[in-house]
Amino acid sequence: MTSPAAIPEKMTAVAISSPGGPMVLKPERRDVPKPEAGEILIEVKAAGVNRPDVFQRMGAYPPPPGASDLPGLEVAGIVAALGEGVTRWRVGDKVCALTPGGGYAEYAKVHESNALPIPSGFTFTEAAAIPETFFTVWHNVFERGALKSGETLLVHGGSSGIGTTAIQLANAFGAQVLTTAGSAEKCAACEKLGADRAINYRTEDFVAVVKEVTEGRGANVILDMVGGDYVARNYTAAAVEGRIVQIATLGGAVATTDVSKLMMKRLVHTGSTLRPRTVEVKAGIAAALEAQVWPLLATRRVAPVMDMIFPLREAWRAHERMEEGDHIGKIVLDVA
Amino acid sequence: MTSPAAIPEKMTAVAISSPGGPMVLKPERRDVPKPEAGEILIEVKAAGVNRPDVFQRMGAYPPPPGASDLPGLEVAGIVAALGEGVTRWRVGDKVCALTPGGGYAEYAKVHESNALPIPSGFTFTEAAAIPETFFTVWHNVFERGALKSGETLLVHGGSSGIGTTAIQLANAFGAQVLTTAGSAEKCAACEKLGADRAINYRTEDFVAVVKEVTEGRGANVILDMVGGDYVARNYTAAAVEGRIVQIATLGGAVATTDVSKLMMKRLVHTGSTLRPRTVEVKAGIAAALEAQVWPLLATRRVAPVMDMIFPLREAWRAHERMEEGDHIGKIVLDVA
Repeated sequence: MTSPAAIPEKMTAVAISSPGGPMVLKPERRDVPKPEAGEILIEVKAAGVNRPDVFQRMGAYPPPPGASDLPGLEVAGIVAALGEGVTRWRVGDKVCALTPGGGYAEYAKVHESNALPIPSGFTFTEAAAIPETFFTVWHNVFERGALKSGETLLVHGGSSGIGTTAIQLANAFGAQVLTTAGSAEKCAACEKLGADRAINYRTEDFVAVVKEVTEGRGANVILDMVGGDYVARNYTAAAVEGRIVQIATLGGAVATTDVSKLMMKRLVHTGSTLRPRTVEVKAGIAAALEAQVWPLLATRRVAPVMDMIFPLREAWRAHERMEEGDHIGKIVLDVA
Repeated sequence: MTSPAAIPEKMTAVAISSPGGPMVLKPERRDVPKPEAGEILIEVKAAGVNRPDVFQRMGAYPPPPGASDLPGLEVAGIVAALGEGVTRWRVGDKVCALTPGGGYAEYAKVHESNALPIPSGFTFTEAAAIPETFFTVWHNVFERGALKSGETLLVHGGSSGIGTTAIQLANAFGAQVLTTAGSAEKCAACEKLGADRAINYRTEDFVAVVKEVTEGRGANVILDMVGGDYVARNYTAAAVEGRIVQIATLGGAVATTDVSKLMMKRLVHTGSTLRPRTVEVKAGIAAALEAQVWPLLATRRVAPVMDMIFPLREAWRAHERMEEGDHIGKIVLDVA
């Protein structure tokens, strides 16, 4: 580890004091992590808040082996130290990164390949709002779901961090974008971001609207984080050869479906979770993002939608905000 | 249409006199079909019997638009006449072909691209047993399921026409093959064909056996024609990144599954039916089969497993045999 800067021994971090509600998130003094070979230590300026952090806080989503027990899957900040063999970064570089945990802290370590330069003109809080949703959407919509220009994407939860990113990226890459959201205000926000039609799921049947808007063809790709009874409805809303990509099951994991529909329409139902993937897989997604999406961020053709920013020590308020479900876009912690 | 041979105006065919049991299959006099541009007329020597024929007979699987109302999805015979523009075949060539229907007859027409030469040394009855299962297995296991050498295939219904073909092809292409069947006799037949382990589903839990044989990894590809409660069990039996390909739902189309399993293991659940595909798609499968599989047939490294042969006029007996479920391999009609 080579490091010219003065790095303290201890740092402030927000830990899960015990499984439970938002108030279990408490500031603690922790050792500053030491970067291993290939890793960089980031002085964290801002950290993104994501739904998996909430599940981890509740005790329902334990960190993978070897990962920090601290919550936090994405950060932005300044490279403070380099582990052995790191070639891409220099101390002082401004980066945003996908972290395997440990983002709710003044320092976090990450493999150098899982960090990306902060797009020019972006603040640390904006940059911290990028990695988790952009990695997730890129992999699931464009790699796993193979969305192509001219096709139709249906994304559920359009006003979430994932949703707002998926709407913008699919729109930028020439797809027709349909989305569901839970209020007129959220629907308006989605359409402003580039959704061709936002469907208020409280007052409209998304299957009927998708069929109507696509003149009966259905959606070529569906990005779903709801599960439950949405699964069978997704099968109906999907086009022939449609790809349905499951990235969460917020509405329940158990689904009852008509498998003959999957067969007759030659659907592909798949899914993935990002956190347990290897450093190499994440590096591959990072490289694709840098080539395909970073230019769009540089011109602000796409950008993370910022909901609210809370101080690190008040991370519990950020979780409360997420659980209330009124947010549109990303919730971020201001660390320094 | 150019044709030097004497082709009669009328032929004998077996038709579905009304939806119902095997006895509704009755010989009729019909006009000999006229090949359109790109089509060939085949003087049928033998016709394969398949499960979809049974569903069609029951009224549950209507022929696609433009197809013959006669049952029969595969034939072997002699080219009797050529439609306009046919370049590949000459009158007198011996071919086997996937037909869009109309196989239970003395003459059947098919697009020239959906016919293949009879592998050398094969009888007409053997050749008639090839197209439907080889097209289906190739497309679903190797194209859609992307089975690779060294991976593990689980095929349900191992003693069926599909099953016996899948076992042989997967074995020939270097996969480990596990299969389910309903009796000790059927299991023995499957292992003789190359299955590494046949599972008697009446006495063993296929999920437990698959896990045990693969040392906990699970199956990389699962070919399933059962559906129903097998779907959830397939999710458990599948390996990480496993592909489950649904080609029928003989055990019921409605399935209750844990979608989070699909997501966590990054499974792909897909499926297809062959009959409604375009002539072009079938031509693509035919070309791949000719390049990859016809050499294996020529040396009898793989061959259709023959169950019983019935005269065309007694097609009802063939259906009875299929519905009784005691057959191992293919049931074929001898036409001439």
